[in-house]
Amino acid sequence: MKIYIDTPFQAPVKAMLHAGTKGDELVFKDEIEDESVQLNALLYADILFGNPLPVERLQQATNLKWVQLASTGFEYYSGIKTPALVTNLNDYYAQPCAETVVAGIMSLYRGIDRFSVLKNEAHWVGYPMRAGLQLLKHKKVIILGSGNIARQVAKILSGFDCGITFFARTAPDAILRTPEQLVGALPKADIVIACLPGTTQTKGLFTTAMIQNMKESALFCNIGRGNLLEDEGALVDALMNKKIGGAVLDVTATEPLPREHALWKCPNTILSQHTGGGNITEQEGIALFFLDNLSSFKKGYALKNVIQLEKGY
Amino acid sequence: MKIYIDTPFQAPVKAMLHAGTKGDELVFKDEIEDESVQLNALLYADILFGNPLPVERLQQATNLKWVQLASTGFEYYSGIKTPALVTNLNDYYAQPCAETVVAGIMSLYRGIDRFSVLKNEAHWVGYPMRAGLQLLKHKKVIILGSGNIARQVAKILSGFDCGITFFARTAPDAILRTPEQLVGALPKADIVIACLPGTTQTKGLFTTAMIQNMKESALFCNIGRGNLLEDEGALVDALMNKKIGGAVLDVTATEPLPREHALWKCPNTILSQHTGGGNITEQEGIALFFLDNLSSFKKGYALKNVIQLEKGY
Repeated sequence: MKIYIDTPFQAPVKAMLHAGTKGDELVFKDEIEDESVQLNALLYADILFGNPLPVERLQQATNLKWVQLASTGFEYYSGIKTPALVTNLNDYYAQPCAETVVAGIMSLYRGIDRFSVLKNEAHWVGYPMRAGLQLLKHKKVIILGSGNIARQVAKILSGFDCGITFFARTAPDAILRTPEQLVGALPKADIVIACLPGTTQTKGLFTTAMIQNMKESALFCNIGRGNLLEDEGALVDALMNKKIGGAVLDVTATEPLPREHALWKCPNTILSQHTGGGNITEQEGIALFFLDNLSSFKKGYALKNVIQLEKGY
Repeated sequence: MKIYIDTPFQAPVKAMLHAGTKGDELVFKDEIEDESVQLNALLYADILFGNPLPVERLQQATNLKWVQLASTGFEYYSGIKTPALVTNLNDYYAQPCAETVVAGIMSLYRGIDRFSVLKNEAHWVGYPMRAGLQLLKHKKVIILGSGNIARQVAKILSGFDCGITFFARTAPDAILRTPEQLVGALPKADIVIACLPGTTQTKGLFTTAMIQNMKESALFCNIGRGNLLEDEGALVDALMNKKIGGAVLDVTATEPLPREHALWKCPNTILSQHTGGGNITEQEGIALFFLDNLSSFKKGYALKNVIQLEKGY
């Protein structure tokens, strides 16, 4: 088989992939300098591993039988057609994303963000910091979404006896199902955690009215997609004027966040720079998943995480 | 009753105490400038609320019938004698302490300490940070101690499916009971969390040999007492030379940590400046606990959290 690998893997991971694909022809995009040679290799490939850009590349590669995306989300391929079977990473990033957003929340509550800056300055404040700390225990949390990240967040929060309410259109245990119900529930929430994928239905879903309905101490957290907010400026305004308690943002409308962006200056805000899915063994894990699916593909078995590219999620 | 209040409470908490002690004579130490007048008020008091310093003050006040300490630990009163009944705050600080140490661990694993410093500099790094991140899920944790903090830490970690081993002399579920057993178990631990009180038995309990037995990626965390380490310099050495993965220290041998102290410069280290017990409602909570015990005291009922001062814990 001709396998085209679009993701720039580190050398040890490449070695893993070589070892696991003996007899196949492996082409790594990042080992080819010339763009037309890259495209040619893609056009002749049977299998694609990775997320080619621009997205039209995927549509051009009509020889592909199977595409293993190296991501969970794939909304940017919406409208792209391919005859290939397409698989994604499904819940691969759920645990790291859940841990990042809870780490951010706990940092705000226990002052770790401030202590990290103080450490940098060798500056001891000590006792007076205590009055600014809070507990995660028993907090009332609204989780937007009911997918893998949402479930992992809920599992972690169970260790803190949080009261959790899901907002989701169809999940059986979601009490909040409409934007109107969400608006009504927000004034009582201590924490809102958005774990929604990027779709046409989630774009701008969290409105300025919703931000304004949050209580003064509440935290807004987003581990999903940056376009969830109707107006990111309204969040900046709420943070700058202490209309809400703080924010944990793994994603923002613009990434990388420009140096002059107002979010850098917002108090009580954690910016985790779209690393929520990160993990020291992230690349090895993705490669192992591919090799496992490859083995199924060769045997004609069902692949894991088959998606419909046009569905958007 | 004459009640002497040693703890410097904020005005709203003082108002709470006044409201809850109608008919009693309340004296707040921080409202008296003259030290001899302060001492006199203490000597005539029936009830003391707070932790007088120097510790000999407690021994001088022989008229006291009841002392409510505003702390959990009381090792610094060791050797002090008083005819009064003494109560402490027992598990009052367990949840905040447990949350602080887990917040520190999660920050190191998910990079929140680094993102906090980067935010301060409006500096986006993004994707390359991912390879430095880790997961708390499934980590092997040794918890030193089996008291209230240790139990709360274990409860929180249950949400991450961590493998937990307790080190404690007598707790029924502690597998590690001797320093030798601890030394033997350390090479397999991802995280060591010290939740031990300050006693003659815990002083210097964590030896340099133990630090040296920890694995390269392991975290050392201390939410107990700063004198647990046989040699804090050995920890500094391990951190500076990347012999261990990092540290979360709420307590240190010297507090406040002097500006020139080597710990400020140690990489992958969270210094939470002895705020582990902190909480926005900390003072109100302590005052409510006192008022509740006061009501029992007046009725002749048993008090909560009676301790033996001489036992040291």
